[in-house]
Amino acid sequence: MDQMIKGSQSLIFMNAPYLISAASVTGSKEAEGPLGKLFDMTNEDDLFGAQTWEEAESTMQKEACVLALGKAHVEAEEVRYLFGGDLLRQGIATSMGVEALQIPLFGLYGACSTSGEALALAAMSAAAGYGEYMLAVTSSHFGSAEKEFRFPLGYASQRPLSAHWTVTGSGAFLVRSAVPEARNSRENIDRSAHGGAGEGKEQARQEKSHVRIAGVTVGKIVDYGLKDSQNMGACMAPAAMDTIVQNFKDMGRTEQDYDRIITGDLGYVGQSILFDLVRGKGYDIREKHLDCGMTIFDQQTQDTHAGGSGCGCAAVTLASFVLPKIEKGEWKRVLFVPTGALMSTVSYNEGASVPGIAHGIVLEHC
Amino acid sequence: MDQMIKGSQSLIFMNAPYLISAASVTGSKEAEGPLGKLFDMTNEDDLFGAQTWEEAESTMQKEACVLALGKAHVEAEEVRYLFGGDLLRQGIATSMGVEALQIPLFGLYGACSTSGEALALAAMSAAAGYGEYMLAVTSSHFGSAEKEFRFPLGYASQRPLSAHWTVTGSGAFLVRSAVPEARNSRENIDRSAHGGAGEGKEQARQEKSHVRIAGVTVGKIVDYGLKDSQNMGACMAPAAMDTIVQNFKDMGRTEQDYDRIITGDLGYVGQSILFDLVRGKGYDIREKHLDCGMTIFDQQTQDTHAGGSGCGCAAVTLASFVLPKIEKGEWKRVLFVPTGALMSTVSYNEGASVPGIAHGIVLEHC
Repeated sequence: MDQMIKGSQSLIFMNAPYLISAASVTGSKEAEGPLGKLFDMTNEDDLFGAQTWEEAESTMQKEACVLALGKAHVEAEEVRYLFGGDLLRQGIATSMGVEALQIPLFGLYGACSTSGEALALAAMSAAAGYGEYMLAVTSSHFGSAEKEFRFPLGYASQRPLSAHWTVTGSGAFLVRSAVPEARNSRENIDRSAHGGAGEGKEQARQEKSHVRIAGVTVGKIVDYGLKDSQNMGACMAPAAMDTIVQNFKDMGRTEQDYDRIITGDLGYVGQSILFDLVRGKGYDIREKHLDCGMTIFDQQTQDTHAGGSGCGCAAVTLASFVLPKIEKGEWKRVLFVPTGALMSTVSYNEGASVPGIAHGIVLEHC
Repeated sequence: MDQMIKGSQSLIFMNAPYLISAASVTGSKEAEGPLGKLFDMTNEDDLFGAQTWEEAESTMQKEACVLALGKAHVEAEEVRYLFGGDLLRQGIATSMGVEALQIPLFGLYGACSTSGEALALAAMSAAAGYGEYMLAVTSSHFGSAEKEFRFPLGYASQRPLSAHWTVTGSGAFLVRSAVPEARNSRENIDRSAHGGAGEGKEQARQEKSHVRIAGVTVGKIVDYGLKDSQNMGACMAPAAMDTIVQNFKDMGRTEQDYDRIITGDLGYVGQSILFDLVRGKGYDIREKHLDCGMTIFDQQTQDTHAGGSGCGCAAVTLASFVLPKIEKGEWKRVLFVPTGALMSTVSYNEGASVPGIAHGIVLEHC
């Protein structure tokens, strides 16, 4: 049984599952950014051969899943459960995107924290031995998100400097159980463990990696009463602080126990608030912190204001930039904390606040 | 470790968690229907003291959770994780509704199948020993759903006979782990197990019930290409068939092994299609079938056309009508299959089909 820390929001897995492969698919602006050369697939017109932004986003999700599966030589029908989500109403990008894969589906919504939610549930299911392979996928698209939350692109509205630029991208992650029973549940395991390269597809199957999901800290809704949907960094920073500090307390750690603490899309405004709030709790994460929304774009040349956002932002940055460093052992332990602003056009038009949520995923080199 | 059936979509829990309490909160039309007297809380103007339909829906979710917790004498802070969702864009009814409970949250979207998705994940987490108590909650509201998917109520548009009537209601379910380690993880367990009534709150805590979640069958997206969002029964029936037949195959069962097979909201149109599709697979569920959407309203007198729908429909029918029968042993084993139509206003305006999904929950008297 996995370690349940009493009175906490966290789990530490006794049989921590492997994150055995990941894939990133992005649009053109992301391809031109600092991480451009690291993405597995990019597209020039951001439509990926589709007719609508929504269909384009679905295509990205499907391609990211297919790429992640392909890298590990695992077939879609071998995946037990898929955990996926996006920012659109009724999670339509996911429903339409993963339909063709025909994997039993748990549809999720956690705003831009959804990649953390999906990885948490995939890891929890794999660590419980509910299946050998689990897939986690999230996406966002600048065109579909602007239409969903703000204005159609043709309207060319002005954006305040505190606004984020939604990342066009999808990241998919294949999680493999390390529970002994699950490992033995497929006949091919023993064969492939002893087989060399070039002995056919079964032998090429990836069994392990150097990245394990060691634990999770599931976030609560944190609401400081902010109402400005054009300043999501400020709305989400309290949730990021809450989850990071909760992780420290639950696991008996400080910032010194992590090589990096990586938030999803707080951006420049949210980062400074996060530093202040965390300092108020007696920790200083400034030297360990990295924000995916500040990493994926070059603010100076790409005019992205506060930084990138969207549940594709943290996902593609994790897949392309963070995981390779953990895989190589450059970073031994990372706390990955995607952050979400829980709002809809209806809620902010009705004057409701924009609460935040953040989920923490502990990734370790092994 | 729990039993993982190879090549299947199902899990059978070795330590099946208890469904120890449930609560239902509904609007006025539901209160006037056949199940009216069974609901825990109803409201005359469907606003529950709020100013908007969305806020009213959030209030229902919160009240349902508080009632389910209260019935079992469990505090919100004792609940490890909450799994919740609704039909509104960005799941806003859940985010705003459960915020006050401050339980770590997994936001879900599975259209009207969400109550099945929430119960599946709550049961999986409890069976894995990830915590003692898990809470599952879903809701829908006629006013907020009409605004989200169709027309504002003031427009008074006509509805085809194949259309459903969205249920105003929320159902919450408290799931308790039966994993030995989890049972022993709270100091009060041994005390309360030996304590009699009237010895204070700790002793009144509900430890067990006569209902266990024995297993789950997680649904895939099933798309027969139908595009009529005003005929959701037809869109969802193939998914219901797929999950029911998959459950039979995975668990080596037939309709004879269940006292009832209960779908969420197929309604009159969807039910007849389901019977035909299931018969095509060699099973006949006609004598065992019950549909929550056909049970909650009186079609003849309440003008609800195809029947009730919404992710509150299956939830409140399960909480008020189905669970008491299993609790008493009138029904020994039930397959509960909430059904969802995966669409958004954007997807059907763009001409996309309406795929379905359904999740199966095996409930047993114990």
